[in-house]
Amino acid sequence: MHIEELTLHDSLHFLVTHQFGRIACVRHSQPYITPFNYAYHDHFIYSFSTVGQKIEWLRANPLACIEVDEIENPREWTSVVVSGRYEELPNTADGRTLREQAFKLLQKHTLWWEPGFVRTTLHGTARPLEPVYYRVSIEEISGHQAKPI
Amino acid sequence: MHIEELTLHDSLHFLVTHQFGRIACVRHSQPYITPFNYAYHDHFIYSFSTVGQKIEWLRANPLACIEVDEIENPREWTSVVVSGRYEELPNTADGRTLREQAFKLLQKHTLWWEPGFVRTTLHGTARPLEPVYYRVSIEEISGHQAKPI
Repeated sequence: MHIEELTLHDSLHFLVTHQFGRIACVRHSQPYITPFNYAYHDHFIYSFSTVGQKIEWLRANPLACIEVDEIENPREWTSVVVSGRYEELPNTADGRTLREQAFKLLQKHTLWWEPGFVRTTLHGTARPLEPVYYRVSIEEISGHQAKPI
Repeated sequence: MHIEELTLHDSLHFLVTHQFGRIACVRHSQPYITPFNYAYHDHFIYSFSTVGQKIEWLRANPLACIEVDEIENPREWTSVVVSGRYEELPNTADGRTLREQAFKLLQKHTLWWEPGFVRTTLHGTARPLEPVYYRVSIEEISGHQAKPI
């Protein structure tokens, strides 16, 4: 097996052709990872969620990391990692256009299974359904691919 | 679909029965995620790697997050998230016992495909092969499972 870096073009192409990954946020130097759905468009990664630990942490510190991978087998895999900034798309006159764009992008991939639209029971209490739309800018991106020699 | 919390027992069982996940580390409030192999044993997650961004960041800030998931389909999935502290298992007289234990644990699952033992070409230069063994303590753990209603 040999591991090589992907070009910028190939890394972006990988993001475009996938819709599921993991996002990490940070509070007091402690990271937190959650799986999430996304839609890539024009150097931004769009997604939505209910308000919870991830959104609370990202509101306080917008630095995020997104990792998307495809593991064919132990010797054939691809992983793309993005560093970027979280930006909320508020439900206001100013934010409406971007919010509608995000909705359309995410709708394409039938991502409606995300916890963002599901009633979640935590500690016996139903969590409020308050969808938050957001996007993460791509400040840095790197990709690696393993292939059998 | 309904999302529920896993019990502590079920979350730990999920870690024991899987060997692949994602680990996040942090520098200057910026998270970084990489896929990795691990072996769980007695409230620690053992793994190894070559020296690179992940190890350098974890040496500077030992706070780590590990996420392990199994996505059957959009309505059936499990995700377990661990917050813990990185601890290196040095190649010294003191560290040897733990290092050998880590080696044995990881060997069981034929994890030798990890970049830790693969020559990686970055920017045209082969990266040195210097395996670092480490473990992450489980300070907090939570699990969620989605099931169709």
